[in-house]
Amino acid sequence: MAYDGAPFRGFAPNRQVRTVAGDLTVALERVLGHRVVLTCAGRTDAGVHAWGQVVSFDASGLPGTLNLVALQRSLIKLLSPSIVVRSVTEAEPGFDARRWATARLYRYTVLNRPVPDPFLASTSWHVEERLDLRAMQLACDPLFGEHDFSSFCRKAPDNGSLIRRVVAAGWLDLGDGLVRFDIEASSFCQQMVRALVGTMVDVGLGKRRAGDMSGVLRACDRSQAGPPAPPHGLCLWEVRYPDASNSVS
Amino acid sequence: MAYDGAPFRGFAPNRQVRTVAGDLTVALERVLGHRVVLTCAGRTDAGVHAWGQVVSFDASGLPGTLNLVALQRSLIKLLSPSIVVRSVTEAEPGFDARRWATARLYRYTVLNRPVPDPFLASTSWHVEERLDLRAMQLACDPLFGEHDFSSFCRKAPDNGSLIRRVVAAGWLDLGDGLVRFDIEASSFCQQMVRALVGTMVDVGLGKRRAGDMSGVLRACDRSQAGPPAPPHGLCLWEVRYPDASNSVS
Repeated sequence: MAYDGAPFRGFAPNRQVRTVAGDLTVALERVLGHRVVLTCAGRTDAGVHAWGQVVSFDASGLPGTLNLVALQRSLIKLLSPSIVVRSVTEAEPGFDARRWATARLYRYTVLNRPVPDPFLASTSWHVEERLDLRAMQLACDPLFGEHDFSSFCRKAPDNGSLIRRVVAAGWLDLGDGLVRFDIEASSFCQQMVRALVGTMVDVGLGKRRAGDMSGVLRACDRSQAGPPAPPHGLCLWEVRYPDASNSVS
Repeated sequence: MAYDGAPFRGFAPNRQVRTVAGDLTVALERVLGHRVVLTCAGRTDAGVHAWGQVVSFDASGLPGTLNLVALQRSLIKLLSPSIVVRSVTEAEPGFDARRWATARLYRYTVLNRPVPDPFLASTSWHVEERLDLRAMQLACDPLFGEHDFSSFCRKAPDNGSLIRRVVAAGWLDLGDGLVRFDIEASSFCQQMVRALVGTMVDVGLGKRRAGDMSGVLRACDRSQAGPPAPPHGLCLWEVRYPDASNSVS
């Protein structure tokens, strides 16, 4: 599913505020006439977008067979345009969108121009001053591989591990001031991509050197890295599963 | 200037509601400390966007010389991201953004896919059923040249002429379901582009034939054409002036 993060206080269900899971659960239960418990591949924070979020739920208790085409149409009618269910499929027994995912790909967009753009304002971070993209690219090098990302993450609520494996990370110049950071990892801890982007933009602005990145990572100290980049530039782009046919992008 | 039309009840100043001219006038008067009367190249309706709107005002009464760079920065600070002043220049004496304009170019975007897209929802009209773009392209033919566009316009408030000269009009397939209508004319009457698009989308859906377009045009009767397409797919793209260096796109 894809969603515009702006109207939501993140993905995770919360009775007090509007969330993606909250809206989706209400719609699903209305269509199916049955209680639904959702599992998602990536719990996006408030304001963060998704293009390829994957959500699963157990439909085995439902009477009869699900008409997946009709289900998708009903969900689109109830939820679009903020949330769009891009496809609905029946999964293997036991499938779990979170536990079965082998990798997540996040995409962060920066608009690096003196003058902003009203049509890109809700999906990119506008940085006025010229960024040194080569330095930012260099700053990606130390990220590859398995590391403790404590310097770039909020503490885990249960003091769980912040060790993650990054398999790809890089900046792309799309021209005309649009630049994009793509990062793929086994999984991410909270605010990880935004803190990485915030720190690398500091490098691009000359406030830090690309060579400092490795020391910041090794410090395992959140105060060593830069502030998180704003949420509206971030998008959960794709989730990968063992069977390539289940990969959604 | 560019603006996202969503938060505004159109361009034209109106004390009761929020308009582009209203916000811009307040910002200009605050920066300049002087009363400002705006003239614009195209009075966009509620919800209609602009990428290349042109606005002029008489600054001859202002003391001293205007620092155009500082003026633009101040306006961007006060008005973005909904309104972005893309450039500020000093015009020839007597310049009037409306009267001096020789042509306006409007762009209408349709998303023609079964499944909508949250990130295109605010700038395109989502049409689910497959459109016959060739028929829609044929329907453009009778529009070229000088015609009375009464069938496609609201009555002028002063019963003024609805004769306009169209110099270019055509549909473009951008791929992946995105289709775009570009039309250039000396000027436009109210709701003209939206009524043209609404009627041509009827052609694309098979509700009308492309060959009917010329009869609808000749009827000079608003009830003969289709309903106006929604405003959020429309954008005032460019305004042309006699001196090519003044053209803004």
